[in-house]
Amino acid sequence: MSEEHVSMWKHLGLNLTAHDALLKVLGDAYTDIYLAQKQRPDGMAYFDFVMSEVHGLRIKELLDEKEQGRKIIGSYCVFVPEEITLAANATLVGLCSGADFAMEEVEKYLPRNTCALIKSALGFKLGKVCPYLESADMVVGENTCDGKKKAYESLGPLLDNLYVMDLPQVKSDQGRTLLRSEYERFKVAVQDLTSVTITHESLKKAIQTVNAKRMALHRLARLRKADPVPISGLDALLANQVSFYDNPARFTESLNKICDELEKRIAANQGVSPKKNPRILMAGCPMAVPNWKLPWIVETSGAVIVGEESCVGERGIRNLTDDTGTTVDELMDAITDRYFKVDCAIFTPNSDRLNHIEEMAKDYQADGVIHYGLQFCQPYTMEAIPVENALDTKGIPSLRIETDYGMEDAGQLKTRIEAFIEMLK
Amino acid sequence: MSEEHVSMWKHLGLNLTAHDALLKVLGDAYTDIYLAQKQRPDGMAYFDFVMSEVHGLRIKELLDEKEQGRKIIGSYCVFVPEEITLAANATLVGLCSGADFAMEEVEKYLPRNTCALIKSALGFKLGKVCPYLESADMVVGENTCDGKKKAYESLGPLLDNLYVMDLPQVKSDQGRTLLRSEYERFKVAVQDLTSVTITHESLKKAIQTVNAKRMALHRLARLRKADPVPISGLDALLANQVSFYDNPARFTESLNKICDELEKRIAANQGVSPKKNPRILMAGCPMAVPNWKLPWIVETSGAVIVGEESCVGERGIRNLTDDTGTTVDELMDAITDRYFKVDCAIFTPNSDRLNHIEEMAKDYQADGVIHYGLQFCQPYTMEAIPVENALDTKGIPSLRIETDYGMEDAGQLKTRIEAFIEMLK
Repeated sequence: MSEEHVSMWKHLGLNLTAHDALLKVLGDAYTDIYLAQKQRPDGMAYFDFVMSEVHGLRIKELLDEKEQGRKIIGSYCVFVPEEITLAANATLVGLCSGADFAMEEVEKYLPRNTCALIKSALGFKLGKVCPYLESADMVVGENTCDGKKKAYESLGPLLDNLYVMDLPQVKSDQGRTLLRSEYERFKVAVQDLTSVTITHESLKKAIQTVNAKRMALHRLARLRKADPVPISGLDALLANQVSFYDNPARFTESLNKICDELEKRIAANQGVSPKKNPRILMAGCPMAVPNWKLPWIVETSGAVIVGEESCVGERGIRNLTDDTGTTVDELMDAITDRYFKVDCAIFTPNSDRLNHIEEMAKDYQADGVIHYGLQFCQPYTMEAIPVENALDTKGIPSLRIETDYGMEDAGQLKTRIEAFIEMLK
Repeated sequence: MSEEHVSMWKHLGLNLTAHDALLKVLGDAYTDIYLAQKQRPDGMAYFDFVMSEVHGLRIKELLDEKEQGRKIIGSYCVFVPEEITLAANATLVGLCSGADFAMEEVEKYLPRNTCALIKSALGFKLGKVCPYLESADMVVGENTCDGKKKAYESLGPLLDNLYVMDLPQVKSDQGRTLLRSEYERFKVAVQDLTSVTITHESLKKAIQTVNAKRMALHRLARLRKADPVPISGLDALLANQVSFYDNPARFTESLNKICDELEKRIAANQGVSPKKNPRILMAGCPMAVPNWKLPWIVETSGAVIVGEESCVGERGIRNLTDDTGTTVDELMDAITDRYFKVDCAIFTPNSDRLNHIEEMAKDYQADGVIHYGLQFCQPYTMEAIPVENALDTKGIPSLRIETDYGMEDAGQLKTRIEAFIEMLK
């Protein structure tokens, strides 16, 4: 790695030894899991480059933006509207939470029985290995699940810039009112941070930028309906993961180029996986970089993943924000309406999600659904049971997996997943 | 048991064999844990009787009330205002959730990693052994923790009368507005159930009835500040537990009689436990009947419990409801204000609770605090760590326990608790 990068990380206060170790693990995993794949679209070279520089050039870009007066806002959840941050001249980035780090230290703050994603978020802070977190001028937490809600109480004192957003639990009028008012409060906080007043024009433009990113991801999703499927689930997941980190406009352009390539593949009836291989829909918890364990096991066990019902996937990008409002308030209403549709398992009841999973299984011609629950993630592990029952009623085979970020259960998972895939053939 | 009781249980649809087994376990536990205690106040005979008839006479009373047109409402949480139910001529009872039952069946509905209290609530329904649940004209669930929130989605279809109350997560103006509107919605639902319109007079009277019960419990709590303490923690816990089931006026009268007796004991410098025995404050999750494991271990290990920082204890009864409002709306505001103060760990931030635990430790002259977290109860097991840190800062010794309803860990717990008590001497 370049001296410039090292100096940048040092300046950000990272623990260089620990950070080197993390990059080594990340690089090795990427080589073993991503680069080992065959018949990848040429356009994935862009994402290979992005990943190789995910703690390097991308951080430099963010720091350059800061030099020019732009603010960086970090978040852990798809309920934080990128539209509002962009409109106030701030960049939104997803924060590291996809790998175990500094676990001994973490368990001084959080019980062992906390989900890996939450422990990871704290571990990256305590281990001083997340350059995104250290670059952020504001970190946004949100009251989604109990685990995150209470964990921010521990994370807060370790940061000097944590902003916590409240969220509703029910899709009632009261719930929408709460979300609307929380987005208004967030808008004011972002404006205060950036000293930029959001205008109708800037908000409309931001909505269009974010919608364009979503539409590129929709396009990618649509192309995966083809049989044979032209791109692996791992590569499609990566595109969704990178969408949380990358410059939105560049991301959109790069992804659209890949989609052009995929269209040619489809026209040539060219797939990334033989037609006979079962098609799998993954549903459940988000998979943050470098949490590739489960899709890697699935796709090296004779199946291909055709869709992700996940925040890092279709749940996160399903709906566009209406940009036709003629005032800031109208656009804020549209933003609220858009995010209020997100069918996260923190809501009760959450029947929309069951319907969406069924629809996706049908639309993507999935032969089976694997429900991925992070161990100790109560909302998703609890909802996995009604999901399984609903799929059962429709005759759609499903497999319920509960796991964490460790590799100890990889062998056992592979056995179960292979058996499931065998059954689908 | 009388034939009349058996016929009543049969009529309620209970599984008589399973219910007999439950009563046997309950009776044996009561004998071994409660009746084995020495120097109990004579007045506890009332509670012994109540407990011996907890599924018998008390159920008959409720069914008699129903015969006379009164409605029975069951709840699982101290956020359900008894004031509103009483004002509409309905009786509120706490529902069974303190013992493992039908666990194999329960785990078809809920993940294994769900807290024992929630699994128990479902187990009593699936096992058909809770006469309170089967007598209830309305069962009220509430969006407190993720576990309960999502579990009601599974419990709902098993009942024909589940009403779910939404709750805020933050003590903001928006949070209070949500609570106020949810209590209004509840008031309407209760009125619809009972066909009784709540008036200023009926609501004021109901507030006074519930306040009188709380004041009797406050009196009991105050008397436990004496050294030596005149009543065991087990007996005081039982009073708090029975307050969820019993007729409020009779309960208040009976408890006040015990308090008269305790005052005499204090005047005579007579304690239930030698002065030298360490005084323990229990803090954390609620203990529903017959969840007596932890206090039983503590009080048979050379210590005495002097207070419960719990929903079944001081958290549930701390504040009175102001009855001076001159309209129904003003009284509803007062009810909202009263419940909005409850320092449940579902709120973020929840610093009030840390302060209350410190205050209680001081007021009750506790030598140490035992924090009781139900395994997989995220809000309380997570908050246990800041509680421990806060107590540590004040030099108050504390012990963090995580357990469930099983007896498998009783030996290990006893060893840890004995060592803690030894340290306090």
